[in-house]
Amino acid sequence: MEGQFQAPSSNKSELEEGTAFTPRFDAAGLIPAIVTDAADGGVLMFAYMNAEALQRTIQTGEAHFWSRSRNSLWRKGETSGNRLVVQELLTDCDQDVIWVKAKLSGEAACHTGRPGCFYRRITREGGGAILEIIVTGERL
Amino acid sequence: MEGQFQAPSSNKSELEEGTAFTPRFDAAGLIPAIVTDAADGGVLMFAYMNAEALQRTIQTGEAHFWSRSRNSLWRKGETSGNRLVVQELLTDCDQDVIWVKAKLSGEAACHTGRPGCFYRRITREGGGAILEIIVTGERL
Repeated sequence: MEGQFQAPSSNKSELEEGTAFTPRFDAAGLIPAIVTDAADGGVLMFAYMNAEALQRTIQTGEAHFWSRSRNSLWRKGETSGNRLVVQELLTDCDQDVIWVKAKLSGEAACHTGRPGCFYRRITREGGGAILEIIVTGERL
Repeated sequence: MEGQFQAPSSNKSELEEGTAFTPRFDAAGLIPAIVTDAADGGVLMFAYMNAEALQRTIQTGEAHFWSRSRNSLWRKGETSGNRLVVQELLTDCDQDVIWVKAKLSGEAACHTGRPGCFYRRITREGGGAILEIIVTGERL
């Protein structure tokens, strides 16, 4: 189950308006993936996929990623049990980003124990900015 | 108005649970930014910010990005008029992603003329996948 995607078309119209899925991986062989909660639309997490992770996500219906820190394929929830069950997969105009709408099977998509990773708001303060915690419940 | 953010803490707990905003830019000086529609929660677009774009986004309340293709700072809508007015800004657990909840001032966040860039669904077909256009209305 290696990533056997077709090479991207050099024709902009085909890439942007066509129905051939030809994902554009970056120089490191990765594509960014945005995961939102299919129920409430909020962003749960952000990670990268390589071709194999993307292929497995499509074929199994469970989100897989490439862990840049561990340098390995990573099925979300394989240790935590917090799997992400794909409800819908989309790509963007130039096919270099993946949007995963998922159902969280478990309580936490974030390793801190919170449902999602975006639990702090950036608030302007003078010429700078600080963070305001809007979701508590960390698991330290 | 250069990006004068503090260096990220090497203390994981401070980085993940603290209130100091210390964004982590990648080796190219960029941080990924997910833009969702504050009204319906859908993902409108995905782009990158450098420190100056992030600083300007925070200070002006309008989304700024770094264009990797043009190699320049880019105020969204400066040519198209389709500005993104920030409603809320968030960052993730390890402060290396920005989530911009925005109000689209105009009709199209996507250069194709559609409201957002994610107008095609990835559909499994045999061992591969094809795209299905779910939002029409391109401006070619």
